[in-house]
Parts: sequence; structure tokens; C-alpha cells
Amino acid sequence: MSQNQSVNRRIVLASRPKGAPVAANFRLEEQPLPSLAAGQLLLRTVYLSLDPYMRGRMSDAPSYAAPVAIDQVMTGGAVSRVVASNDKNFKAGDWVVASSGWQDYAAIDATLVRKLEGAALKHPSLALGVLGMPGFTAYMGLLDIGQPQAGETVVVAAATGPVGSLVGQIAKLQGCKVVGIAGGAEKCRYAVEHFGFDHCVDHRDPALAQRLQEACPQGIDVYFENVGGAVFDAVLPLLNTKARVPVCGLVSQYNAEGLPQGQDRLMLLTSTILRKRLRVQGFIIFDDYGHRYGEFAKQMGEWFSADKIKFREHRIQGLENAPQSLIELLEGKNFGKVVVQIGEEND
Amino acid sequence: MSQNQSVNRRIVLASRPKGAPVAANFRLEEQPLPSLAAGQLLLRTVYLSLDPYMRGRMSDAPSYAAPVAIDQVMTGGAVSRVVASNDKNFKAGDWVVASSGWQDYAAIDATLVRKLEGAALKHPSLALGVLGMPGFTAYMGLLDIGQPQAGETVVVAAATGPVGSLVGQIAKLQGCKVVGIAGGAEKCRYAVEHFGFDHCVDHRDPALAQRLQEACPQGIDVYFENVGGAVFDAVLPLLNTKARVPVCGLVSQYNAEGLPQGQDRLMLLTSTILRKRLRVQGFIIFDDYGHRYGEFAKQMGEWFSADKIKFREHRIQGLENAPQSLIELLEGKNFGKVVVQIGEEND
Repeated sequence: MSQNQSVNRRIVLASRPKGAPVAANFRLEEQPLPSLAAGQLLLRTVYLSLDPYMRGRMSDAPSYAAPVAIDQVMTGGAVSRVVASNDKNFKAGDWVVASSGWQDYAAIDATLVRKLEGAALKHPSLALGVLGMPGFTAYMGLLDIGQPQAGETVVVAAATGPVGSLVGQIAKLQGCKVVGIAGGAEKCRYAVEHFGFDHCVDHRDPALAQRLQEACPQGIDVYFENVGGAVFDAVLPLLNTKARVPVCGLVSQYNAEGLPQGQDRLMLLTSTILRKRLRVQGFIIFDDYGHRYGEFAKQMGEWFSADKIKFREHRIQGLENAPQSLIELLEGKNFGKVVVQIGEEND
Repeated sequence: MSQNQSVNRRIVLASRPKGAPVAANFRLEEQPLPSLAAGQLLLRTVYLSLDPYMRGRMSDAPSYAAPVAIDQVMTGGAVSRVVASNDKNFKAGDWVVASSGWQDYAAIDATLVRKLEGAALKHPSLALGVLGMPGFTAYMGLLDIGQPQAGETVVVAAATGPVGSLVGQIAKLQGCKVVGIAGGAEKCRYAVEHFGFDHCVDHRDPALAQRLQEACPQGIDVYFENVGGAVFDAVLPLLNTKARVPVCGLVSQYNAEGLPQGQDRLMLLTSTILRKRLRVQGFIIFDDYGHRYGEFAKQMGEWFSADKIKFREHRIQGLENAPQSLIELLEGKNFGKVVVQIGEEND
């Protein structure tokens, strides 16, 4: 896995997917190492994060961020080591996290790079999960928008994923009852046994709505929305008056081609928001909460060091396997936070 | 119009409407005057408020409040004079506002009654409009949920109605650009000339979406939702990132029987909430903000006394005309705040 020090392997977007991405949408290519401008760092990627939002970047439909251009490197957060530095605050060997993309090496402005610190220095890949963007997303979405109160019922799907597992654990730390939703009996069992959820319901169960209702006899006070679709349909009737719904993602919809036919339930949602006095609020973590990253890092670092937070990593080896891993992630085939190891920690 | 002092005329719900209410859903009947229990007041109704929410009370579909039972008096806010008092804080002749229903007389606990004060004593019917529930709804929904900032664009429908006209005027007082939506050229002209809206778009115009876009070249930052349906469809694509949507009513939907067929846009709404990071929040004014009524009354009283707030009242004479007036209100045939005069101010 040792990276060739004169060649930069990278994965570019070859074509835009129609529906679910396929291997042909990606292309692995080799380029010379990027040259370094003033104020830039040369980074060697060690761990690449794969996340559902990447599906959105592959499309040119309206989104909250610009799409990846055809033939350009796939966007993505990564943990890297500094190889060379044109900035006085960084030196070779530093561990950093940056949105440096699906590639062996990246030249990037030092202002766009954050040094790893605290617990992340011992477990660098966690800076892509519990100690990074997914953790920050769970923390702010749940606490700032969800405003969970002790004794309330919090529901989150993708319960063994990096965001959902954190939402559940943070809600438990607030004294809430936590019900997860996950795909399959094994994940459900893991959510309860490893992450401490009170219950976990299998979204593949045809009786999902009924199972969820049984698991939430007091209704739902906070639904952390990261999947949409059938799960949302099961949640909506169970929401209590004044429930809060932070919306951080809709992974079940990312491969959808167009809207389903049937009754148009747009006004059903709006009338439910009115009748139940719901607060439904979307957020994009760094755009909305970037200024509060320090608060998250401090609190999560404390919880993590006190062993109050568990995590599960799903590690893949090799840049060339990133496309297939993203395809599977979008199908819910991951089990834990997906990290692609691209380089050695020490090289 | 002088009320008979031994007979209580009242309008009860005779049957539940299917779709739009019709005259046969109501029945005018006569009863003896109610007797007075300890702590109660006997009220003589002078002005009865008609409001869109009353349609919801006529149905037994799930709602935020219990439905009116068949053969029971129609619910409604009214301004009344005290005829007799079993409470030391009230005396005969006092002007009060209470949810005393569609009837000449009501016996009601003094704890559920509020005395008129300030400007409302000079214009008692305004305690049902600008100085009462509709004004309070506009004030809190716009300022607390909408959070309008100077220079932002605020859009509201039913622009000449009691809530919409206030939303627009309060938004102007905050330095916003205000675009109204109303039914017909006359109402649109009135919204601009009388209420000071910057623009007003006719929702009957087949090119509503385009007209609204032209009126909002900077997009929409706050959409105060009180109608739903086609207006919401026109608004949704124009909402800016981080727009706020207080949801106070959906009058276009109240007579709907079931949902329309077609594409199911439920996830379109949720994905727009995510992508644009919207905040969509329903509220029921007294449930959510009852504790802040004093703040509203003080500020609105000041604005009103300083002639910064205009209003328009659509006055109907006679309890027997209330049913037809509510039917027409739900069709948008009112022009201003609908008040039914049931008794003389001095009798």
C-alpha cells in the first residue's frame, strides 16, 4: 500500500450516474504529484472517508454544494500526513484532516486544513467519524435543533452508522429513551448491545410502522432524519406535539430517479407540521455550525476519553476499492463508519 | 338587533361538512338564558369573530383541538359585555373577549375571560382582529419563528386578511421588502395602497409562479404560511438558503376531501428543507405563545396608537348570517377581518 512518491493515483468522476452509481461512473487515473504553491501543503492521504453526501456531488441536480465536474477528482474528507509545507504552522509528518479528495496526494491551502489533536492523534481514522464530521453532525443536529429533554423519546435511523450511532449515544447521555432503526437483525442487535439503544427496529420488516409504534409507546419527540422514505412514513404518525425533526440527510432518496406516483402528500406533511406544531429544520454541518466546532471537539473529546462513546469502523483497503464501497454504502451494506485506507500511517 | 333578554339564540353544528360547509351543517336554535355558576360571568355577545380555523372544528379528523360536537354551539372568539358577574374582578358593563361561541349569551368562567384595555376599548371589535388573536398570530409567527432581518424579502398570502395584512405591516416596520398574495386585482391594489406592501400578486393569475418570481428578484427569506396549496407550490422554488417558514394555517386545504393524485412530493419538500436548510415550524398561537401575550399587546398598542398599523374590517350584521359568512370566508370572499355584529355596543 506504500504510495509511489512520484505518481498520484486518483479517482475521478467519469460520468454522472442515473439512479444508483455503477463502477463505470468512476475512473482511476495516474498523474504526476501536484506542485506546491505558496501557503499550500502537500498531503499524503492515509484514510479516506466515504459518506452518503458524496452521491449528491456526483449529480448536477440542484444541491447545497456544487457538483464534482466530470473528469475531476471525487470530493471527500480524508486524514493525511503532511509531506511538505509552505506554511509555517505545519511541518512534514503532521497529522491533518481536510477535504482533499479520492487520491494519494493533494496540494491544498493550509487555511483549509485542520490538525488532528487529542484522542484523534491516537486513532487518526476517528477524525473522519466520531471525532470528525459525522460526530459533529450528530452532536449539533441533535442538541441544537433537536433539543432533547430527559425522558423524551429520540428516534434515529442508520443506527449503526457513524451519525446515527452517535445521535443515539448522545441522546442517552441526555437521559432520553432511544429507538434506532437499522437494516437487518444483526445491526439491530448491535445497536442495542454495543451502542446502548433501548430498542432497534429492522426497516426491512414489512411491519416496520407497527414495530416502531410498539417501540415508542409515548410517541416520538425528536426524529433525527438521515434516511427519508419509508422510515419517515413510519415516523410521521408517531411524532408528538412540538416534536423536532433535524434533517441532515435522506440517503434512501439519493439514488431515486424522480418522485413516486400516488397521492401527493406534500400538503399532508405541511398540515402535520401545523397540527402537531412541529419544527422541521435542515442543516449542513460546517455551513451552519462551523463556528461551533471547538465546542463539539471539547465535549466529544471528554466523552470519548471517559469511554462514554462507542464507535464501529468499517475499514476498506485500497483507493481502487473506494468506488465499489461507496456503491455499497448507498445500499446500506456498510456496518459502521466506512473508511478507506489508502496509505500507511507511517511511511 | 337588540337581544331578547330571556332567549339565547345560538348556532349549533347540525352535521359535519363533506368538503365545503353548506347551510345545512348549521342550525339556529333558541334556548333559555344560561344560569350562572360560582365564578362565572354572564356575557352578552356584541361581536363574533369568524376565522378559518373554525372549519377544522367542524370536522372530527385529527386536529390540534377537539372538534365541536354535533348539536353543540359553534366555537368562536367574541367581544362581549358583562351582564352579570359572580367574580369580584368583573362587573356588569365590562367589555371582555372570550371564546364564548356563536350565540347571544354565554355563561363562562371568569378565568377564561380577558378584559379589553387600551385602544380596544375605543374600538371593541378590533380585539378580534389587529388587537387580538389574528394580530397576535401575525406578530409571534413573523417575529419569533420568521426572524425577519432588515432588507430581507417576506411573503405572505391572504394579504388583505387580518393575519396577512398584519404580517406585511410588521415586516415593513422591520425594514423588510414585503410581497403579498391575494385573490383579485382589487385586493392586490389595496394591499399595496392601504397596507403598504411593496408588491402584491394575484393568486388567480395562471402565471402566479412567474409573477411571484418577478416580484421577488432576491428570492424569499420568510414565507408566512397561512394558505398552502398552489401558493406554496409557487413559493417553494423561490425560498432562499436558510429561509424560515412559520406555518399558521392552510386555508386552501380546509375544504379538501383527500389528497390530490400525482407525484408524491413529500420527499421533495423534505429534500428542499435539507438542501436549502429551511426551518419550517407550525404554531398554534395561544398554545405556544400565550405566555407572551402581554408583550404583543404592549407593542401592538404602541404601533396602533402611533398610527403605524392599518386594518380593514368586513362587518356582517346578525347572528343568523354567520354560517353563510363563514362559508364565504373559506372561499376567500371576505375582504378584511370578518366580524359578525350580534348585539348593540350599548344596550
